[in-house]
Amino acid sequence: MASDPDRELRIALDAMGGDHAPRAQVEAAAEISRTSSIRVVLVGDPERIAAELGRVDHRRGRIDVVPARQVVGMAEKPRQALDEKPDASILVASRALADGTADALVSAGSTGAVVLATARHVPLIEGVRRAALAAVYPTRKRATSADRFARLLDVGATVRCTAEQLLFFAYMGHAYASRISRVDRPAIGLLNMGEEETKGDEVLIAAHQLMKRDPRLNFVGNIEGNQLPSGVADVIVCEGLIGNIVLKMAEGVFETARNIGEYAFKTKLRWKLGLGLLSSGLEQLKTLTDYGEYGGAPLLGLQKIVIKAHGRSGPTTLVNAVKVAAKAVRGGVSDEIRRSVEEFSARGAMT
Amino acid sequence: MASDPDRELRIALDAMGGDHAPRAQVEAAAEISRTSSIRVVLVGDPERIAAELGRVDHRRGRIDVVPARQVVGMAEKPRQALDEKPDASILVASRALADGTADALVSAGSTGAVVLATARHVPLIEGVRRAALAAVYPTRKRATSADRFARLLDVGATVRCTAEQLLFFAYMGHAYASRISRVDRPAIGLLNMGEEETKGDEVLIAAHQLMKRDPRLNFVGNIEGNQLPSGVADVIVCEGLIGNIVLKMAEGVFETARNIGEYAFKTKLRWKLGLGLLSSGLEQLKTLTDYGEYGGAPLLGLQKIVIKAHGRSGPTTLVNAVKVAAKAVRGGVSDEIRRSVEEFSARGAMT
Repeated sequence: MASDPDRELRIALDAMGGDHAPRAQVEAAAEISRTSSIRVVLVGDPERIAAELGRVDHRRGRIDVVPARQVVGMAEKPRQALDEKPDASILVASRALADGTADALVSAGSTGAVVLATARHVPLIEGVRRAALAAVYPTRKRATSADRFARLLDVGATVRCTAEQLLFFAYMGHAYASRISRVDRPAIGLLNMGEEETKGDEVLIAAHQLMKRDPRLNFVGNIEGNQLPSGVADVIVCEGLIGNIVLKMAEGVFETARNIGEYAFKTKLRWKLGLGLLSSGLEQLKTLTDYGEYGGAPLLGLQKIVIKAHGRSGPTTLVNAVKVAAKAVRGGVSDEIRRSVEEFSARGAMT
Repeated sequence: MASDPDRELRIALDAMGGDHAPRAQVEAAAEISRTSSIRVVLVGDPERIAAELGRVDHRRGRIDVVPARQVVGMAEKPRQALDEKPDASILVASRALADGTADALVSAGSTGAVVLATARHVPLIEGVRRAALAAVYPTRKRATSADRFARLLDVGATVRCTAEQLLFFAYMGHAYASRISRVDRPAIGLLNMGEEETKGDEVLIAAHQLMKRDPRLNFVGNIEGNQLPSGVADVIVCEGLIGNIVLKMAEGVFETARNIGEYAFKTKLRWKLGLGLLSSGLEQLKTLTDYGEYGGAPLLGLQKIVIKAHGRSGPTTLVNAVKVAAKAVRGGVSDEIRRSVEEFSARGAMT
């Protein structure tokens, strides 16, 4: 999948998935048509897309529309919904990705539906057995790197993992951080219940050894829960069950802080004053969980690039997500992952 | 282990474990000797204990001292330290608990050392295969219950669990919440990556069914990470790896909030003002993680009561921990767990 840098890139955008679809998606496509050479392929209800396009300034002939008459709702059970809706926008978009109509796919729809639909149509990179969804979140300022973001993967695509799968997640995170965020030798950490290499179960102990012995990885060891916001690692690897709980936990803690604040806001003037003064600090905390602002979470391990944007994404976030997808295609992220996995297999260092 | 309510209770207190040992431990024992009928058994260096006792007002003859000449440090590897230090205070205290010299044990020492040392000397309740450490944390105010606390278990005693072990953790949490916190029918939740009963791996799916089908449990279903601070459940069950990461994560998020605040404190007057005004709100957040204030985390599943107090515990926390331990003995928490496990086994509803 070597990519010609001058070739026009086509990014499929699921026009029906997300809280503000299709309006936000169409606005994002319109902006990209005016400001970049990327061609957006809007996948969804053609009448609704046409109606929204009529409202916004865009370059005609720079936006394609692929019709899809059904939608998987955010509250639906993904597997069942996909079985019952063969013409769902996320399935049609996944087929467009698989057959080469598009080079990458962006969706703000249900995470489960995005993971399952792309898994049905887009093959995994050879040697990779499981995909991983990477949350991108800002960390505290750090002395060692100009990069203010860290990547946590997997956050829900693969519930439980073997040691080798965790190693492959490290390759995926490494490829993404170095190719997209231009981090030179991304520091890789393994989320665990203690710093010592003997911590965790057999899977985590074995994964620690595999990462430590791999000369291409800048492995910094186990990371404990309290180190997640610190930025000690550029990439933090864990199984999907743990990553999902941790990510939602961060959202919950922030919500608690906000609730305390809102309660105070209603009841006490001095609280109200304090809150106004502290609001920028709370914003900083909030960005910990709103990874949607940063272009979305890449689904890694597939032969093609898939970006899951937050359900709440507005036009700006979707524009960022489409640009990140284009950057990932041009940067050869999938090729980089494939090479790492191949080299590992060639060394025969299987667990 | 039926307990005579009028019998004098003896609680072993590891005098050498924790950041403020032995001073905080001796002060706690002194206060208990003056204000309660509980007899504290201080386990540790007799000369240092005697010196500290000389400084504080206490009732002579109401505090016992059991000598132990070694200590496991907070930074030591627990297993190795216990192997090399047969006279470590936590080992001597565990033996005192096992042989009946004490009815319960409280330690603010290294969590790993407390779990391993008690496991070596105190038998598990019949039928129980794994102990669980329960973190007790305050939640948001809730309409359904006057109780402001929730219990998360396991937070690190048992790394990975079978479905049946998770069910037994639910029994343990149920017994503790109903006997100690006097919650009538404690709501039990299973920490998972989605609400639907089909979420998670086979272990979590099976555990969900076991809890759902058990008529004695008030099972409220799966709990997601963002619901942890909400108080939707009185008891939340998970494997030790996940509980440990989640608990430390909460600490890390709070620390981030505090760092933002301290940075601002140094740089901007308006921030400084805001911080002062909001400090009680931040205190509320802080209590989310400082379970030490609430008497410590019970280690459940053993035939005897063990309470792990926070390493930073001062005298007040330790007094609370000793009183909670006494309440757990008098409330028959271990008996309640044993009965639940027996009944489950009798029904033959094994997975």
